[in-house]
This record gives sequence, C-alpha cells and structure tokens, in this order.
Amino acid sequence: MKATAEIQVIPIGAGVSVRTHVKRAHQLLADSGLQVALHAFGTNVEGELADILEAVRRVHETLHAEGVIRLATAIKLGTRTDKEPTLAGKLF
Amino acid sequence: MKATAEIQVIPIGAGVSVRTHVKRAHQLLADSGLQVALHAFGTNVEGELADILEAVRRVHETLHAEGVIRLATAIKLGTRTDKEPTLAGKLF
Amino acid sequence: MKATAEIQVIPIGAGVSVRTHVKRAHQLLADSGLQVALHAFGTNVEGELADILEAVRRVHETLHAEGVIRLATAIKLGTRTDKEPTLAGKLF
Amino acid sequence: MKATAEIQVIPIGAGVSVRTHVKRAHQLLADSGLQVALHAFGTNVEGELADILEAVRRVHETLHAEGVIRLATAIKLGTRTDKEPTLAGKLF
Repeated sequence: MKATAEIQVIPIGAGVSVRTHVKRAHQLLADSGLQVALHAFGTNVEGELADILEAVRRVHETLHAEGVIRLATAIKLGTRTDKEPTLAGKLF
Repeated sequence: MKATAEIQVIPIGAGVSVRTHVKRAHQLLADSGLQVALHAFGTNVEGELADILEAVRRVHETLHAEGVIRLATAIKLGTRTDKEPTLAGKLF
Repeated sequence: MKATAEIQVIPIGAGVSVRTHVKRAHQLLADSGLQVALHAFGTNVEGELADILEAVRRVHETLHAEGVIRLATAIKLGTRTDKEPTLAGKLF
Repeated sequence: MKATAEIQVIPIGAGVSVRTHVKRAHQLLADSGLQVALHAFGTNVEGELADILEAVRRVHETLHAEGVIRLATAIKLGTRTDKEPTLAGKLF
C-alpha cells in the first residue's frame, strides 16, 4: 500500500552541528527510489509503505556503520484507503 | 529567545478530509506575524519562542471556537545559543 | 540491530473517540512479540529494528483491512552502538 | 482551556548520554505544577494549555542558561471540547 511520510534524523552526541549526517540521511532516502521533498524539519517522502520503512532501516544501519553512535528519528506516517496518498495532495 | 518550529495540527473526528481546518491553522500561524513555510506535514515557523507558543495556543482556541471538537498537534521546537536559529539555516 | 521506539496511531475520520482503534493498534504491537509499554501518548516498544518496522506495517495494514479509512502514525525511533538500547535504560 | 501533552527534550551536542539534561527538563516540568508522568520517550503532562506552553518555554530558557547549547523538543498537544482531557482518560 502507498504511504506518505516525514522522516527527521537527529544524531545525538555527534556535535552541535549535525548537518553532515542529516544531509547523508536525506541522500540515502533520495537514493532509495522514493519521491523526496526536503524541508527545514525533515525529508517528506512518498512511496510504498514497505519501501519507506525499509529506507528508514537503511538510514539507521548506514549512519551507524559510518560512525554515528546514537540516532533519534522522528517519523510521521500517513496511509488512507479512500484515495492514493500523495505529498502533492497534502498541499493547498 | 529565537526559535524555529514545525507545527502540524490534526483535527480528530472532523471527517476523513481535514484540509479546511489544516488550512485555517496555517492561516492563523501566518497571521501571527511569524515567518512561515508550508509543507506536506505541517507549517515550519521562525520567530520568538514566546510568539510561537502563543500562536499555538491561538490556533487551538480559535479552531475550537469555530467548532472543531478535538485537536492533536505535533510540534518540533528548536533553540540554540551558539547562533540565531533560522529555517534557512536548516536547509542544505 | 536493537532499537527502542514510541508508536502512536491516530485514526482520522473515525469519530472523536478513537479508543477502539488505538487499543487495537496496541494489541497488534503486543502480539508482534515486541516488549511493549503503554502510556497516554502511545506504545513504547523494544526489539529488533526490523521487527519494529514490520509491526508498524502490520498495524496499518490490519486497521485498514478492518475498516479504518485514514491513519496518521507518529513514530520515535532510537538506536545506538555504544550499548544496547532498552526502554528501562531510558528511565531514571 | 485544559490540555494533555507529551514533551520530549533532546539536547544536541551535549554528548551521547543526555540523561542529566533530560532529567532536569522533567524536574522543571514537575516543578511547574502540572501533573506529570514520565515514560521512556518523554514526560506526559496535564493542565491548563497556557501553563503547559509556559513550562515548555521555561525548560528551554533554563537549560540554555545552565549551559546546554542546542535543544530539539518534540511536543504532542491534545485538546477537546466534548469533555475534559486527562492523561488517565487516554489509558485503557
């Protein structure tokens, strides 16, 4: 089933500036084939629910493999059965 | 002190489509004098911390006064003392 | 890898009282084999990251199959490599 | 108007272990006169909406005054007009 989501990755203990890791997380989401839209508090994505959740897993595993010790991620996930959920459909 | 925030207002029990109320919440935030940026999962704002919190209160009170029975709002709030936090500074 | 998470499921358009569906979501998480702890704003869980994400997918698919039209879920996800993350370790 | 809320304070750049600051934030919320309930992903509170928002402001200002450079706070805020919202009423 299709879903929309917002994914915000916060590295904890990686310094006050977290831009490098946040940018890397956004890049991993974009590379996963999902439609992505960056904003100041996260990356909005659109795609298959399973693909979105798999992309979240990949972000955590990759950032940890690259040396980030602790991650706190906030995800908002939207699904509906009356019509196909899209990021565009949530704007006005 | 200055802050950046993301504010997402979800009306519960107001039907499957919540666009009217979400749009009204965004308008109230924009009318409050804060800098605002709309995206698919909320309104990002920038301004004085006290003004942001006051705007959140006004959104809840106004929407309820206009008939919405239940609201669930998600807020992300960012402050820092090493430099002035801005929405633009969180993009890359 | 192990993770801790908070999962809050909000049915939209299912009436002002959402207790039945929230309870069902909690039950599905508990049935998934994860360690769970209920509180007023969600269900905290502890387990394998992949199992947690799979449980989130199952909650959305099951609630929709049972008639809920629209779901907005908020997830907080924590992972760390310096020690095993546990719910108990986050209390004080 | 009465409200329930969940408040989670994340210090960024204050090291991998953030227990000291999270505990301090919880104490400030408890000291504010709100009813509080600690869990692994935040402090749930119940009280007047204005008091809750004022307590959030106090947490940010106090932690910064005590040396924390950057804070990311996640707040869930619930209000309703059909009955008085309580933390107890959200459990089952």
